[in-house]
Formats: sequence, C-alpha cells, structure tokens
Amino acid sequence: MTGIAILGMGVVGTGVYETLESNAETIARRSFGPLEVKYVLDLRDFPGASFEDRLVRDFGVVERDPEVKIVVETMGGTTYAYDYTKRALAAGKNVVTSNKELVAAHGAELIALAEEHDVNYMFEASVGGGAPVIRPLVSCMGANVIEEIYGILNGTTNFILDRMERGGAPLEEALAEAQALGYAERDPSADIEGLDPARKICILGSLACGYDIGVENVRAEGIAGLRREDVRHAAEAGYAVKLLARYIRLGERKVSAFVAPHLIPKSCILANVNGVFGGVTYIGNVVGEVDILAAGAGKLPTASAVAADIIDAARHLYKTRFRSVWSAERAEYVPPEEIGGRFYVGSSGSAQDAREVFGDVRLISEEGGAAFITPRLTPEERRVKTAEYRRRARVFSEMRVLERGVDEW
Amino acid sequence: MTGIAILGMGVVGTGVYETLESNAETIARRSFGPLEVKYVLDLRDFPGASFEDRLVRDFGVVERDPEVKIVVETMGGTTYAYDYTKRALAAGKNVVTSNKELVAAHGAELIALAEEHDVNYMFEASVGGGAPVIRPLVSCMGANVIEEIYGILNGTTNFILDRMERGGAPLEEALAEAQALGYAERDPSADIEGLDPARKICILGSLACGYDIGVENVRAEGIAGLRREDVRHAAEAGYAVKLLARYIRLGERKVSAFVAPHLIPKSCILANVNGVFGGVTYIGNVVGEVDILAAGAGKLPTASAVAADIIDAARHLYKTRFRSVWSAERAEYVPPEEIGGRFYVGSSGSAQDAREVFGDVRLISEEGGAAFITPRLTPEERRVKTAEYRRRARVFSEMRVLERGVDEW
Repeated sequence: MTGIAILGMGVVGTGVYETLESNAETIARRSFGPLEVKYVLDLRDFPGASFEDRLVRDFGVVERDPEVKIVVETMGGTTYAYDYTKRALAAGKNVVTSNKELVAAHGAELIALAEEHDVNYMFEASVGGGAPVIRPLVSCMGANVIEEIYGILNGTTNFILDRMERGGAPLEEALAEAQALGYAERDPSADIEGLDPARKICILGSLACGYDIGVENVRAEGIAGLRREDVRHAAEAGYAVKLLARYIRLGERKVSAFVAPHLIPKSCILANVNGVFGGVTYIGNVVGEVDILAAGAGKLPTASAVAADIIDAARHLYKTRFRSVWSAERAEYVPPEEIGGRFYVGSSGSAQDAREVFGDVRLISEEGGAAFITPRLTPEERRVKTAEYRRRARVFSEMRVLERGVDEW
Repeated sequence: MTGIAILGMGVVGTGVYETLESNAETIARRSFGPLEVKYVLDLRDFPGASFEDRLVRDFGVVERDPEVKIVVETMGGTTYAYDYTKRALAAGKNVVTSNKELVAAHGAELIALAEEHDVNYMFEASVGGGAPVIRPLVSCMGANVIEEIYGILNGTTNFILDRMERGGAPLEEALAEAQALGYAERDPSADIEGLDPARKICILGSLACGYDIGVENVRAEGIAGLRREDVRHAAEAGYAVKLLARYIRLGERKVSAFVAPHLIPKSCILANVNGVFGGVTYIGNVVGEVDILAAGAGKLPTASAVAADIIDAARHLYKTRFRSVWSAERAEYVPPEEIGGRFYVGSSGSAQDAREVFGDVRLISEEGGAAFITPRLTPEERRVKTAEYRRRARVFSEMRVLERGVDEW
C-alpha cells in the first residue's frame, strides 16, 4: 500500500483523485500494488466529499507521516507550492506536479534536491496536459541531439485562433466565447500574452539541452495584437496562424526559446491541430521529426498525466528514475530578433513599397494596404529593411513564418 | 563504463552502432556514464570497419563476459535471436531489441524471464520505428484503461497507398516504386499481406490489456486486393484509404485486434499521415485521444528507438524498470467479423441493388458498378446482407470505415 497526499483540490487535484478512484484496478496493477490517498490538503471545506475524513490543513501532518511516499502538488503558484515541494523532497517523498509555473522557475533546483534525497520530482503534466511530451523527449529521444522543438502549448489561444480563422470572429469575440466555454480564465492574460506557453517551452527546452534556459529569458509575444485580416490573409496564402512556442538549438549550450504567433504551412501537421487540442513537434538529429498531439488541457487529460507520474513513482520507490538531465547551469540565450527567417507583414503600404524595400516578396493582399511574406532575411537585414519600410508605411502586424533549420543563420 | 554487445550488424545494428558513435557525448550524459560497444556479433566479415577488432561469431563470448550489461538484438527472426535472448537474460544481461517478430511471438515469456533475473527486456523499436509509442502507452497513459488503438504501422504499404491515391498508380506500379526506393523488401509479402503490422498491433494490444493476445490470432488482411478505383472513390467521398492495425477493448480480458484496409475521414489526423510516415492513435478512458506520428521506419529512426532503450537500460542497471504488464495469460480474442460498423463496398451491382439490400447507403459512384458505404451494420446484419448482395452482384472490394466506439456492438 503506497500512501499518497494530494495538495490542492482544485480542478486538477480533483481530477487526479477521481482518476485514482475510477481506474483503481488498472492503476494498482501497473503500480505493482494499491495506492491509497491518505491525505488531501486544502484550506477549503468539502462537506460530504468522499475524502472529507482525510482533509488536512497542516502540511506538517503530511511531511511527518512516513507512510506518505508520494506527494501530489496540484496547488499551483510558487509560494506555498515551492515551500511544500522542498519540504516533501527533503523528507524523502517523491513529488509529482502539474505546476508549470513552479517547474519553469525552479525545476533544476528541485530535481537536484530530489536527487540528493534519492526520490523523484516528476512533472509530465506540466506541459501538454494529457499529451505525453516529457517522457518521449527525455526518454524515447534520449539518443538524439534535439535540434528544434515547436509546439501549440496553449489550448485557449489555439481555440481562439481557430474561431478567428474558421468562424471569422474578431479576437474579443473569440475570447469571450472561450471564456463562456470555460477554456479561458476570467483573467486570460497568461494565455493571451503567451506567458503560459513560455513556461512550458522553458521546461521542454531546458530538458532538451540539459541546461537551464531561465524562464525570465524566454520572450513571449501573445496574440493580443492579431487582426482578423491577418488570419484571413494567412489562410488565403495556404498558412494557418498558430501561437507557437519554439526552442532552437544554436550550438552546445547555446539556444533560443520564444513564443510568438507564426504562419504555418497547411501541409504541416500542427496546422491541422485545432480547437483545444495541442501538439508538439520534436526534431532529433537521429530520428528526425516526431509529432505528438492530444487534448492539451482540461481536468481529466491533465489528471491522466499526473496519475502516470504517480504510477511511475510508485513503481520505482527508492530507485531514482527521473533524474532528468536539467542542470542549474545556464545555457547561453539568444533572443529571437537574432534569428532570421521569412516574415509575414500586414501594412498600410503598397505592393511597390514592399518590393522596393524587401525585394522578392510574396504578395497576399492589397486591400487596405499590402499584406505579404518577405524573402528569407538575416537578423541584420530584417532590422534595416523593417525600419526602412516603417518609414514608408504603417506595419499593423509582423509574424514569423515557420521554417526548419533557422539556426543556420 | 557500461559494456554493450550488438548482435547482428544489418541495417538496424549498423544504425545503432553509428548512433552510439555520433551522439556519444549526449548519450553518455543521459546514461550517467559512457557506453562501450565491446562486441559485435555477426557471421559476415567487415574488413576495415571500425568495429572489426570487436567482431565475434560465438555468442558464448558475449554470454560469459560479465562486463557486458546490455545485449542489443538486431538480428531479426525467431531462431538464433530467441535462443541468444533467453541466454542473455538468463545470464543477467539486459536485452534491447527491434525484433518485432520475436517480441510478438514470445514477448510475455521473455519479459517474465527478464523479471526473474532482475533485468530488462526492452523493445521500443519493435513498433513504430522512431515513433515513441511503447513508453507513452505503458507509462504516460498508465492510468488509463486503453479503449482503442489504431495505427498506420507499416510505412511500405502507406507509401504504396499514397502513390495510389495521389499518383493514381496501380498497386503493382506503386510497389515497384517502393522497392526501387528501398522502402519495400524484394519479397514484400509481410508488408503487403499485413503480417508486419499484425505483429505490431499484437505487441501494443497485449501491453494495453495486460494479457497475451497471441500473434497467431490477429487477423491480417493486406492491400493485395485493393483496386485503384477504390482508393479514388474513397477520396471522392472524403476518405483516405489506409492499412490500419487496430486493437479494440471489448471488456476485461476480452479484445479484438486485426489489420485491414480502412476508409478514414480526411478530418482524422491519421488520414494526413502520408509517405513512409507512420502514426498511432490511442484512446484512453481518462485522457481521450493521443496521436503520435513519426517516420515509421528506416535505419536511423529505428536506431534512435533502440538507443533510447539502451540509455534507459544503462540508467537503471539492476533496477528493473520495464517490468511491463504483459502476462502470458491469454486474453479472450474476438475476430473482426464479430464487430459491426459501416463498410465500403465496390461492386458490379446497381445503386438499386445496394439500396434494396443495405437500405440507406451512401452512393459514391456507379461507374462499372456501384461503389457505396453501408449504414451501420451489426455482425449478423453484415453476414446476411452481404450474402444476399453477393447473390445479386460481384463484390470487388469491401473495406471497413473507421469509427470510434465500435465496441458498442
């Protein structure tokens, strides 16, 4: 019997509890023995809940109970969650979490602490919700140098972009719909401004290169400025507009990671990932491209990933397994403006302006100003030419076009 | 220093050797120490090869060397490979393989033998080539009851179907092209007749339900009988024709698994998996749908998966980790004809015949006879109505239309 404590009975915590109950038999079999939720820590009351008798408010109770082998942190945030996680690991307990904010900010430190105490700090659910993304990266692709990662790591913004493209809705309207459906928070800024996917790509990128990227480095550009016309123009040109979180390896310990709206060719698998689905593409130097898609978020998909970590932790008690290669040493960070490529420009200018400044552009539309895709530009060319173009016309929007091997610049 | 022996320097074995060389640094870091290929076993000579000095012909040398912790079986077949695998496991060595034929036939037994000797028998590369499919199933989705699996698990036939659909080529021509490109063996029967994907779905299905399906049970229907017209009709009706390997859970310990050409709606991710790419879709009762796509086959993708197992084995020496839940107990097998659904029929009959026999069919074409999709049929209805229709017309081809939740029949 492996004792478990769940910290925080919000949406995810409740989903984990329900999953452990509903699939108890399958889980017990795969865990090589039954799991018992011994404590549930939450400040609220849950009158009548089946776990009411196990409700505690003092983390010390969990910390001191030697029967608790696995602590499930589904509180979120970086204050209490950080403190409790450190104390649980120090007390020799495995910690499983869905808290991307905490993992992005302190992953390397907490992994090291877990190692020190010969336990695991596991966070499959912190990226991609139910999509299995961390094990495939660190385990299945372990023999690969990971050259690139790009993913749709935020279901809310993907739903909104989908509505803008297929429903022709303006951003505000699509956002309101997402909120009505419960996909978006009442304060959607972390999604809309790209902070949420920035945390996730920081986690994946750090695991991919083995060094700490530092979440504060990761540039996040959201979809706030996106116009319905841009999405329509992109579609006319055979592209989908997606908010991509990207990691690019530029050399040993030299990387870039950023979040920004991109134009993706419709032929690309990720261009077909719609609604609240999410997906990530890994490029390894041996295997090539690997795509993983699944319902990105939601109570049960996330609970499924948390429960997977619980099972693995239970299978490997006292056998450190998740010693991920994510050291606290910093990687050299290269900002996105130092990475060239092709760019979509929505502007008030004329096709002639566009051609005179950028050369052989691909013109998409001239209504209300030229919308076009530039030829491949080096970072320097981009700076100079964009500045010159801005002297001739207003630029409403500028988006990167997804290309492979951008690191050749 | 972890000693490794590679058995069989064919395409995959060579790829593994090259990968361990080229990515040595990355791999050493993730393996927590360098790996050394101490022996290469092959009956051929490799004059001038960098491993020439380590070439052995007597497996006993490998078997007796305590420094060899990991044996990589890339020989294929079920004779020597089976014998050497058992001897290696019995000698307390981890065994990593890409040999789907052996895993499908003796997986449960070899896993049990590995467990007995506290080592691992690992076979990520046996299914999906470079696509990470086994860990996501047994580990990431461990908390789920797996309801369905369907996948494109054979790159050769997928390439051929792609050429038939997009190139309009007849089967023989597409096959010849696949052979010219080295995708298909000179004797392509294992691919064309669906034996290869049958082995793979037997492995995935057995891991999913935890009981042994028995590869001899898995019905395999290949693409040999497929007509160019059928592929064209399917495309006209908004479907792609794919050779699907399917696993369906019908109850605790009660399953079906089979391989057959299917019509898949274009809206389905797998319908967009073309060329030698492959993919698998898992349906879990908690997470819902998970799709994993990658280059299905080839030297390096497969080597990438083998090397991943090598790394995991090295990380967990003497810590049994891959104790997969695949018992030798048999699952109850339900043959595909006992599973209802909708079916595509290409025939010499008339639309009227089709309607009179099957009721509200979806007519696709009448050229040279009616091609249509039947309404949902129970197994019994299918038997009776198909027999009646065959009395009226010749049936050139019959294919299942992919639907979820077929287990409700």
